[in-house]
Amino acid sequence: MNLKKAGEDRLLAQLLPMLSRHRSVVLGAGDDCAVVSGLPKGHLQLLKTDCVVEGIHFTTESPPGAVGWKAMARPLSDFAAMSGLPQFALVTMIVPGEKTLDWMKRIYRGLERAARSFGVIIVGGETSNIKGPAAISVSLTGLVEKDRWVGRGGGTAKDELFVTGRLGGSLGGRHLKFIPRIEESRWLTKHFPIHAMMDLSDGLGADLPRLARASGVGFEVDENAIPRHRGCSITQAISDGEDYELLFAISPSRSVSLKKRWHRRFSNLTLTRIGRLNSSFVTRHSKLPAGYVHFQ
Amino acid sequence: MNLKKAGEDRLLAQLLPMLSRHRSVVLGAGDDCAVVSGLPKGHLQLLKTDCVVEGIHFTTESPPGAVGWKAMARPLSDFAAMSGLPQFALVTMIVPGEKTLDWMKRIYRGLERAARSFGVIIVGGETSNIKGPAAISVSLTGLVEKDRWVGRGGGTAKDELFVTGRLGGSLGGRHLKFIPRIEESRWLTKHFPIHAMMDLSDGLGADLPRLARASGVGFEVDENAIPRHRGCSITQAISDGEDYELLFAISPSRSVSLKKRWHRRFSNLTLTRIGRLNSSFVTRHSKLPAGYVHFQ
Repeated sequence: MNLKKAGEDRLLAQLLPMLSRHRSVVLGAGDDCAVVSGLPKGHLQLLKTDCVVEGIHFTTESPPGAVGWKAMARPLSDFAAMSGLPQFALVTMIVPGEKTLDWMKRIYRGLERAARSFGVIIVGGETSNIKGPAAISVSLTGLVEKDRWVGRGGGTAKDELFVTGRLGGSLGGRHLKFIPRIEESRWLTKHFPIHAMMDLSDGLGADLPRLARASGVGFEVDENAIPRHRGCSITQAISDGEDYELLFAISPSRSVSLKKRWHRRFSNLTLTRIGRLNSSFVTRHSKLPAGYVHFQ
Repeated sequence: MNLKKAGEDRLLAQLLPMLSRHRSVVLGAGDDCAVVSGLPKGHLQLLKTDCVVEGIHFTTESPPGAVGWKAMARPLSDFAAMSGLPQFALVTMIVPGEKTLDWMKRIYRGLERAARSFGVIIVGGETSNIKGPAAISVSLTGLVEKDRWVGRGGGTAKDELFVTGRLGGSLGGRHLKFIPRIEESRWLTKHFPIHAMMDLSDGLGADLPRLARASGVGFEVDENAIPRHRGCSITQAISDGEDYELLFAISPSRSVSLKKRWHRRFSNLTLTRIGRLNSSFVTRHSKLPAGYVHFQ
């Protein structure tokens, strides 16, 4: 049955029972707003919204379960970038009436699977018709200890730059099933002072300059050190985007200890020093090509 | 200049300075997540997302400032429905590359104008390309006193049903410039025990049955009592939708006092008793036609 025939109340009646519940949720999806409990003392709240659009972030042929996973995983990756813990999600589905109820349910299953994997409760949603491609927007709220959040702006000259995992070639399939690095990020800030951090969504070539600019410093990168996925060129590793790995800056005095402890703790995920921040305002590595830039 | 040429960093550089700031915002738009302070004691958090889509909630010819206003005002109306106070907004703009930077800025000005009018800070956003109609999704967080939130489910048989303002004909233009009834809703819960409340977005004919169902009761409506906008038929007042007025249930013992005090406080906004809840499971007024139903 397609959505045109089903109508909104019927759609919600099918989707709402798929959502998990939690005692912090006073009132979940189905009323005008969700009602949830406040934060424990000593915490700040994190807020993030992101979206995936048919024809841009996924194709009409993409498995809907993977699309739902990606829609939830993208803002989760931003929580990793701040070293925060996500709690609640709001989901907006903008969907043409030709899509089937089954397609919607599979999207929701993917959203819910990603949410459960990271302790997130979907507490509300909205559906709208569109005469065009489908879009799924996910907003997340969560928390972080007052002294533990990491922005992009705290990097200093001489900090070493590290990336988790490998870069490049994500559009071959990984972009639909990546794992947000929340566990790794929480471990990092528990054991080390991380000066600046972000997740790589537009490609190292676009994202690293943003971190450096926010920190008011320059950077230099050893291109050959950039950890690449099998078969990817350096240019791909820099420009493809949608890696969703962490890029962070840490004092060089911590570098050896970090590498040793990381490899003990995350033996299946590589951690690589790719360069450092410096005090030049023009970056020494002026050839670094731009990553994926929206609208271009 | 259109968005294809401008690119995301340039777009953000133009839009971000338009946003207002507040001391509760530790880190606003521009980093991976927004960071904001937690709730004062004795409060719960409210979460809501909603969207407007080109060709559905506005047309290509609609003034962009009014579209931005509507995109923010819709979830604000849901805050009114719960008697909550909105605090922070996340904005997702899904926009084809052909739209101009000027169009985007005018949308943002409308969003910001609505936000300021109700004490809301826009703390984050996301932009994406789409090969199709534009869509703007707004997520709001806010707060409500633990003993003051009003859901749809607290109505009891014999409660009287009231609506604020007049219904019908909104699509003639009011849907782009309506005022969310937050002030009225806060006043109501300050002075009276309100059993159940919601905002009328899909039309009384679709929304009232939802309130009754959530409360586990039936309802009866005096059609002739329904307050209509000039030139609207009863059917239009019931079915047009997008009224964004409040519908609420209150004990009949409060009815006289409510009307008297309301008219003193809100002399420019009518308040009308349109019927009551009852214990029948089939509604006595079986002719009430459905309001606007999504996907149909």
